[in-house]
Amino acid sequence: MNDRFLKACRREPVDCTPVWFMRQAGRYMKEYQAVRARHSILEVCKTPELAAQVTLQPIERFPLDAAIIFADILLPLEPMGLNLSFTEGEGPVIHNPVRDRAAVERLRVTDGDELEYVAQAIRQARKALAGRVPLIGFAGAPFTLASYAIEGGGSRNYIETKRMMYGEPDAWHRFMDKLARIVTGYLRRQIRAGAQAVQLFDSWVGCLSPSDYAEYVLPHVQLIFEGLKDEGVPLIHFGTGTTTLLTLMRKAGGHVIGLDWRVHLDDAWAQLGGEVAVQGNLDPVLLFAPLHEIERRVEEILRRAANRPGHIFNLGHGILPKTPVEHVAATVEMVHKLSQR
Amino acid sequence: MNDRFLKACRREPVDCTPVWFMRQAGRYMKEYQAVRARHSILEVCKTPELAAQVTLQPIERFPLDAAIIFADILLPLEPMGLNLSFTEGEGPVIHNPVRDRAAVERLRVTDGDELEYVAQAIRQARKALAGRVPLIGFAGAPFTLASYAIEGGGSRNYIETKRMMYGEPDAWHRFMDKLARIVTGYLRRQIRAGAQAVQLFDSWVGCLSPSDYAEYVLPHVQLIFEGLKDEGVPLIHFGTGTTTLLTLMRKAGGHVIGLDWRVHLDDAWAQLGGEVAVQGNLDPVLLFAPLHEIERRVEEILRRAANRPGHIFNLGHGILPKTPVEHVAATVEMVHKLSQR
Repeated sequence: MNDRFLKACRREPVDCTPVWFMRQAGRYMKEYQAVRARHSILEVCKTPELAAQVTLQPIERFPLDAAIIFADILLPLEPMGLNLSFTEGEGPVIHNPVRDRAAVERLRVTDGDELEYVAQAIRQARKALAGRVPLIGFAGAPFTLASYAIEGGGSRNYIETKRMMYGEPDAWHRFMDKLARIVTGYLRRQIRAGAQAVQLFDSWVGCLSPSDYAEYVLPHVQLIFEGLKDEGVPLIHFGTGTTTLLTLMRKAGGHVIGLDWRVHLDDAWAQLGGEVAVQGNLDPVLLFAPLHEIERRVEEILRRAANRPGHIFNLGHGILPKTPVEHVAATVEMVHKLSQR
Repeated sequence: MNDRFLKACRREPVDCTPVWFMRQAGRYMKEYQAVRARHSILEVCKTPELAAQVTLQPIERFPLDAAIIFADILLPLEPMGLNLSFTEGEGPVIHNPVRDRAAVERLRVTDGDELEYVAQAIRQARKALAGRVPLIGFAGAPFTLASYAIEGGGSRNYIETKRMMYGEPDAWHRFMDKLARIVTGYLRRQIRAGAQAVQLFDSWVGCLSPSDYAEYVLPHVQLIFEGLKDEGVPLIHFGTGTTTLLTLMRKAGGHVIGLDWRVHLDDAWAQLGGEVAVQGNLDPVLLFAPLHEIERRVEEILRRAANRPGHIFNLGHGILPKTPVEHVAATVEMVHKLSQR
């Protein structure tokens, strides 16, 4: 098995830097579009055969060092009692947003049996991968899930989210606690089904000040990482716009910390200290640039990582839908070639 | 005259911390809504009587320490040959976006006579203010202007902007140079009409990596600050999401550096060094919080500023449209009361 990715998560030496991409199974691939032409996102997520098939698509096409199960970060909201759908081009919509304490109280924390379809997809994907590369599981982090649930979808300024956070801190903490518990169970279920690493996506937490992160988010994320530490797989903690939150995210937990492109990889790693691995940090928009520009940036990231054990190459956020597929292929090759030890 | 604001810009001692808010003349005020019910944004901008009237509205209502001329950061795009309009709720639209070198070449760099209406508004506002508080002028910075001009409006990922930056660097630098020259002339015109300080808004530059900022933005911003340094008024350099760009922005220029809420004020100030003033840094969404929460955060910011000369209190970005007006009033009072020397 290609175990570069798992070795890097554990900060063990590798022959070259492992690389995978967030949202590597996605709209930039014709193979994915073909499946999505016949099935909605939620159908693909909930049909283990389809989810496994889509998970494998980028692995068949590029020499990536890890697969990530096809799913959506918001899936755990459904068993809690929220009505989730995806509108074309607009992203996720929650039809019954959570706006007050009573709505928080109504949310169910189940054992996650309703999400067993993801566990099944993981089993099928593991089988199809046949040990070629490890499989990553994932979930949204409490703040990011709460922001979608409260706003009713994506948001620019997170006004309603912060209004609850600042104005009804008891309801906020109760909500975050419920989310942390369901996410912990959901990730444990994924690990036990065969996920060889899991990533917690706190995609939107970068809208918070460091003081707010410490007070309103950190304890809940800590609960998740505490709850998973005996499962024996690498835990990845990801966010964007988090330059000033990195040391707090490190404190909250994770063996690997995700870095977006707004920070120099070596500066961030120095801040985090040597006892943690890092993942990143190419600007996803750079994949639209000419190949010689991509190469210059890949080189810069690798130079900053300086072959220290514990770097996983990735984008700073998910691959964008119109990314040229041949640039994705070329980038994977560059990372491997330019990082040969 | 209340000269707390100008003193703080120059890092001179003050009796209490000066405060003003970005977009303080805006939709959260009924007085502003009344004017906008009868006039479009561009009509208000281009009618000096109306622009001056709206500029004074927050000054009549709150004990703010500075006024800022009512205008839009995108106005300099019009004399360059771009067709600008504002759609309700959607923000600005550029109907003929700049997508290639030929479009860049077609852009005019005039002496800014077409923007004389802003200079007239400044003269009228100065007269109406009658020395009560200083008046700030402003313009969008080249990167932020380029991003609107290239995308054709607001953007989430700045794909087209970065595509030109990475893919056609000559066209990019030519465009940025044209923008820098028109902005320099426009700000000089504002100063000579009576603006007692000017602010350069690089609102969206935080989407760049530090390497990209240094290569594609810094030299052009430097040109603007160089061009204005003999005008004798304080120059404010503002951006959001700029935590990792602060020392580069400092290098680009400005007597005052704007800070958003994602960074602790004292950490940022330490990074910037003692020879510069800072402006910020309350999360605009905090104005939606209960007053006791606002007070706790105002106190934290003032504690971190520690009465060092050179702090101007502000939000980390513009006031949001639905902000409760009584919270704005209370915040101004808090800042003055809690920062008494």
